[in-house]
Amino acid sequence: MIYLDNSATTKPFKEVLDSFVTVSSEYFGNPSSLHSLGGQAEKLLSQAREQLAKLIKVKPAEIYFTSGGTESNNIAIKGAARLNRNKGRHIITSSVEHASVRAAMEELEQEGFEITYLPVDENGRVGVDDVEKAIRKDTILISIMQVNNEVGSVQPITEIGEILKNYSQILFHVDTVQGIGKVPLSLKNSNVDLCSLSAHKFHGLKGTGALFIREGARLAPLFSGGNQERKMRSGTENVAGAVAMAKALRMTMDKSEAGLERMKKIQSMLRTELNEIDGVKIHTPVIHSAPHIVNFSLIGMRSEVFIHALEQQGVFVSTTSACSSKRKSPSKTLLAMGVPESLAESAIRVSLSFENTEDETKTAVSVIKKTANQLRKVMD
Amino acid sequence: MIYLDNSATTKPFKEVLDSFVTVSSEYFGNPSSLHSLGGQAEKLLSQAREQLAKLIKVKPAEIYFTSGGTESNNIAIKGAARLNRNKGRHIITSSVEHASVRAAMEELEQEGFEITYLPVDENGRVGVDDVEKAIRKDTILISIMQVNNEVGSVQPITEIGEILKNYSQILFHVDTVQGIGKVPLSLKNSNVDLCSLSAHKFHGLKGTGALFIREGARLAPLFSGGNQERKMRSGTENVAGAVAMAKALRMTMDKSEAGLERMKKIQSMLRTELNEIDGVKIHTPVIHSAPHIVNFSLIGMRSEVFIHALEQQGVFVSTTSACSSKRKSPSKTLLAMGVPESLAESAIRVSLSFENTEDETKTAVSVIKKTANQLRKVMD
Repeated sequence: MIYLDNSATTKPFKEVLDSFVTVSSEYFGNPSSLHSLGGQAEKLLSQAREQLAKLIKVKPAEIYFTSGGTESNNIAIKGAARLNRNKGRHIITSSVEHASVRAAMEELEQEGFEITYLPVDENGRVGVDDVEKAIRKDTILISIMQVNNEVGSVQPITEIGEILKNYSQILFHVDTVQGIGKVPLSLKNSNVDLCSLSAHKFHGLKGTGALFIREGARLAPLFSGGNQERKMRSGTENVAGAVAMAKALRMTMDKSEAGLERMKKIQSMLRTELNEIDGVKIHTPVIHSAPHIVNFSLIGMRSEVFIHALEQQGVFVSTTSACSSKRKSPSKTLLAMGVPESLAESAIRVSLSFENTEDETKTAVSVIKKTANQLRKVMD
Repeated sequence: MIYLDNSATTKPFKEVLDSFVTVSSEYFGNPSSLHSLGGQAEKLLSQAREQLAKLIKVKPAEIYFTSGGTESNNIAIKGAARLNRNKGRHIITSSVEHASVRAAMEELEQEGFEITYLPVDENGRVGVDDVEKAIRKDTILISIMQVNNEVGSVQPITEIGEILKNYSQILFHVDTVQGIGKVPLSLKNSNVDLCSLSAHKFHGLKGTGALFIREGARLAPLFSGGNQERKMRSGTENVAGAVAMAKALRMTMDKSEAGLERMKKIQSMLRTELNEIDGVKIHTPVIHSAPHIVNFSLIGMRSEVFIHALEQQGVFVSTTSACSSKRKSPSKTLLAMGVPESLAESAIRVSLSFENTEDETKTAVSVIKKTANQLRKVMD
């Protein structure tokens, strides 16, 4: 099997699972319990928080563990909007966000908020000027993803953050679910207030994630209860999951220097090879793009047919984001980039992790080329 | 170590962790992915749903996986209230609910809902008549826990459900986090619409839970996004966690016949032995109580001092619910039962699981008796 659907989910590192098992079986106390089993669990949770904070260069008190990227995005967006609704009801986002951001925005529209959806250029990127122009006196939140999950465009986070230095009433939320470990992001320098992470995108476990909340920023929580996570996220903490998440990120960061070099080489090879296929159109932009995604269309070829043909040969890729793949509607990101609907319907996403080797991706691309030519003949 | 704090959390079964590891490492696909790795994951998720549904005798389509009891309670209560706010804004609950129910109610009060907090009798039980009397034309939700987490009182769920047959506009939510596997509950016969479960209370994993939503009942979700869990709970599904949860409940149910017999015997022994201590007051009622909790006070003894003294001898018990233990305020349940504050401040909760043996609990109770007498002497 050659697994090239790492933007949907990654295979957990063995060491990450080992840590999960050790914590779950040997340090199973409830961190809120007053006895030493609770104390041990609480200490492990604190260590995971410190480790994660160090890796993304923020304070431990700014890390809040959640059940994943969707929860983090929902807390950030709904929490910021609902708590600050008396300050203003205008929010800015892009037209290429993940479903969990887009749907949260739609829900806020129902609650009386006004949302500006910024357009993107042909590379899937928002214009920094457009962000500034969209800002109003009643703007309370800007939510822009760092790396698009479908085509890999990298948004101008630092430049937007620069503008926002002049607007202290606006909270800046960045979804780094696809970017972390692969595209640099300085939360401090980019003036980011809120940032969402999902562990299963970097070889951690499903059901675990985190939200960075800059010290001083305030949000309305989604869960009420025992006031865990400093009142932001009630519920018994998933200690083993948090430890596993911190470990997965540390391992990812440790691999990133060599991993990124290899990934960029593979991406470049993929571009060159895929471009040799008749009727191919590569959507992932050449500039301002992440190293792990190559999104392309084969004109006239339905993407589902193509991915199933590849799968029969052991190559796993996807049509669009996993969260939207069953809706069978064309990628919103591609449409926003101006890609015609017919072409968007044949989009294929190849997404890499640091675990993919040059050899296997070479095999994969030759399978892709062969399959494209075979299917093309059948269709002609 | 003799662990008698199972109402705070339980040690995961080894087989449950093994299943978690197998699914995480071998079937790590995103259930939303269109390829076979996604299909395998989706199939495992469906099997877990079917297994869980069978165990609690409901339909698979009525099971929604969540991140735990707090999330389940929050979705049920806020989701029911917010979606039905145009039908009415009155909610009934008890004064002895878990923090996640109480806090959700307080949040709804802020949103304009009116909450009736039913009193309990000296056994910690609500009166069925009181429930009926509290019902108004604008009542949309009743939330009553099955088993109290602090003293173990069992609420008259079936009788309340009987009344609610005449009130089709009212959704009936039951928190069975402490009860499942230990106290019988027929969701169908009790006319329950919504029911919360938490896996780490029955040797499953933290960060996993479920909500039963009766077919036809409608709630507003807390998370928006990829529309997983039939739009009720967006976010990549924690497949391994769901499989582990279903397995933990199956194993718990398999153990329950012999386990309950032993548990009742141990509880009875604990009552008898503890009653021999000078100045003891047992709060757990004799009738309508769950078999796994014994809550008692040693008059004049601060509970924290006592649990730490026990811990030094390898016996782990708690002061109150873990979720509230760090607040250091006396148990709300005990106060609602009419226990004086001074006595409530010295409350100790012993909570059993099917894994506790008669031998170890005999040892524990002799440690408790010895320690009580020693501390009493120091204090005198």
